[in-house]
Amino acid sequence: MKRRHGRKIRVKYGIIKFGYECKLKCERKRFWMAKVRLGLIGVGNMGTGHAENILAGKCPEIEITAAADRRESRREWAAAHLPSAAIFHEGEELIANGKVDAVLIAVPHYQHPPLAISAFRKGLHVMCEKPAGVYTLQVREMMAEADRHPELTFGMMFNQRTNCVYRKLKEMIDGGELGEMKRMNWLITDWYRTQFYYDSGAWRATWAGEGGGVLLNQCPHQLDLLQWLCGLPVKVQAHCHEGKWHDIEVEDDVTAYMEFENGATGVFVTTTGEAPGTNRLEVTGSMGKAVCEGDTLTFWRNQVDEREWRVTCREGFRKPENEKIAVETDGQNPQHPAVLNAFAAHILRGEPLIADGREGIRGLMLSNAMHLSAWTGKEVTLPIDEKLFYDLLKEKCATSRHKEEKDVTISTEGSY
Amino acid sequence: MKRRHGRKIRVKYGIIKFGYECKLKCERKRFWMAKVRLGLIGVGNMGTGHAENILAGKCPEIEITAAADRRESRREWAAAHLPSAAIFHEGEELIANGKVDAVLIAVPHYQHPPLAISAFRKGLHVMCEKPAGVYTLQVREMMAEADRHPELTFGMMFNQRTNCVYRKLKEMIDGGELGEMKRMNWLITDWYRTQFYYDSGAWRATWAGEGGGVLLNQCPHQLDLLQWLCGLPVKVQAHCHEGKWHDIEVEDDVTAYMEFENGATGVFVTTTGEAPGTNRLEVTGSMGKAVCEGDTLTFWRNQVDEREWRVTCREGFRKPENEKIAVETDGQNPQHPAVLNAFAAHILRGEPLIADGREGIRGLMLSNAMHLSAWTGKEVTLPIDEKLFYDLLKEKCATSRHKEEKDVTISTEGSY
Repeated sequence: MKRRHGRKIRVKYGIIKFGYECKLKCERKRFWMAKVRLGLIGVGNMGTGHAENILAGKCPEIEITAAADRRESRREWAAAHLPSAAIFHEGEELIANGKVDAVLIAVPHYQHPPLAISAFRKGLHVMCEKPAGVYTLQVREMMAEADRHPELTFGMMFNQRTNCVYRKLKEMIDGGELGEMKRMNWLITDWYRTQFYYDSGAWRATWAGEGGGVLLNQCPHQLDLLQWLCGLPVKVQAHCHEGKWHDIEVEDDVTAYMEFENGATGVFVTTTGEAPGTNRLEVTGSMGKAVCEGDTLTFWRNQVDEREWRVTCREGFRKPENEKIAVETDGQNPQHPAVLNAFAAHILRGEPLIADGREGIRGLMLSNAMHLSAWTGKEVTLPIDEKLFYDLLKEKCATSRHKEEKDVTISTEGSY
Repeated sequence: MKRRHGRKIRVKYGIIKFGYECKLKCERKRFWMAKVRLGLIGVGNMGTGHAENILAGKCPEIEITAAADRRESRREWAAAHLPSAAIFHEGEELIANGKVDAVLIAVPHYQHPPLAISAFRKGLHVMCEKPAGVYTLQVREMMAEADRHPELTFGMMFNQRTNCVYRKLKEMIDGGELGEMKRMNWLITDWYRTQFYYDSGAWRATWAGEGGGVLLNQCPHQLDLLQWLCGLPVKVQAHCHEGKWHDIEVEDDVTAYMEFENGATGVFVTTTGEAPGTNRLEVTGSMGKAVCEGDTLTFWRNQVDEREWRVTCREGFRKPENEKIAVETDGQNPQHPAVLNAFAAHILRGEPLIADGREGIRGLMLSNAMHLSAWTGKEVTLPIDEKLFYDLLKEKCATSRHKEEKDVTISTEGSY
């Protein structure tokens, strides 16, 4: 056992001192492999997917040494597939007794912050599934606890940030290629779900169990990407339709209008009730227009900044000349394994995370703002009245529907 | 001179009795050509375009026998290019003395209803440029007068209805190919205009002169197509930004959310401040998704109705199978001349119009609803409180900016 930043690291094939000061040895990691001992809290749809990725050798610096699930069938699955893992009923038990360096929290959203807080207090690194939690007040507690343990790694499973198309777009926006942002428009309606999906878990699509619908379960990725690419808006007005397409009590159809600090506006449309659906993100700026659709990123680059053209052109209808470019990316889209690998590399060698856990509150703030606007029928400004949101959520939970547990695990392959 | 429906028709090369009872002779119209004598009221950007189409022989059943414009330079243009036309200063003079069968009204929007009413009272057919007027109360008076003269033809210049892509989409929607409508989303941000454009006319982009911005001037086509394709929504919530991109007092940036009677939702986004801009209309239904973009219409057709699939499929993430179809159209997009030719054919032979003048109020209702929602900061239901809209518009007009007349005529070619 060695320590880095005060943390124990298990080294499988020998002893090695990790850290920046020891580059030569680090480069020999294939032969001198240190592994992060991971406790998997939740072996449901997502947890199983993570376990399968790790078992398939996609995360060579991670081994699952413990797993917890409240369902016997999932514990049996874990016992059968993860023979070296200690199996627990409760995540809290795993945290207390699991002999792990880190936990991966993949249980219903409400439990993310309390489990993360327990893990930090136990000195464990935390990788949290999205969303960070259900309401920002709760997530602030998690962030405060994380801040009390700066030596611990805290990551958020924002695997869509690894998509080459969004990475490239961020690079272009941050590099000023789009000029001043004017508008963003995201039609993300390809989150199709059947009624069978919603019937598959007792917690699913209930206020008390999940705390929301498509905004909480499917869209945290896009809401995170939205704020990552464009920043958080300052105003939101949203229309959320509850149980519009499915027999559920939470929203499965959302249209939101946003305004950003510089005056740019945005629209975000999502649903789980549309097939085949669309995933098209358009961001326009004074230097042109970028569109992400499918695996492609297209950029129409203006020859001159539109802001200058608008006031100097002596014709009425003429636009600046532009060039249409099929933007090349590195083609890499390594998703969940990449997030886990960066998490392990951060623990072992201080390398950058894909997404710091503290950034999880930003997309959730946007999600909460959309709910709050829809519930109150009013435009809301960000940061929202977090106490009001929590009070209204509690009201929703008080009358939340009881659903029977069905114990179904659905493969998430190709659908995240 | 012969009469049909009590109207005189001038016959250029001989005498012919027109009407359904006389088909054989009608088919010989190339040789026995009857012409509608048209009075062009307004020889500005649009009026000049119409005159040039007619002079170019694109409307063989129309001749311009009178023209009116308040600007000397435009009267001079008309005198030079339309030698057989009587020239007037005022539209009302043309209506009173113009020896015309019909008028084409192409002056600032506020004047459409009063001129149309005068024309009807004088027994003239009316083709009105879009929008029908600035506020629905005013347009109702025009419609009432039209209804008092059922023998007269009343058409609206909704030339975009001649576009093969929208015609085909309407055929598909009306024929049930999309199933039950779920959503429409129109990004129509390619109405780019420079500051020079807004400075080109004193009436332009003022509350008193034009009564609105992009909704009143550029978007009447899309607002008409929207209601023609999808029906009128029952609720609208809109965000209109005035003078956001240009030095003008009216809106040049709009985002509107809509709800339709069956629960379908919609988004309509438009601006004159974006280059290169987008024109993408997506309509989704239970049988699939249709997208109009550029000159193309694409349809993703579901093998089974999604409403049935949703409740019968025993998998969580699986969509109905669908087939992507590049929809064939007839390729025809005859625009303004087609509207005028149908107008003449309706006068001469009772053939169908492209758009009845009475339908003009529908798109205007939608436009007024967007303004009213933005001005009051509230969701509005349709039909709107028309008196409230009018009162608020009058308030806007009372403080409207005075602009100097510059007398510039801009070619509208390729931009309608």
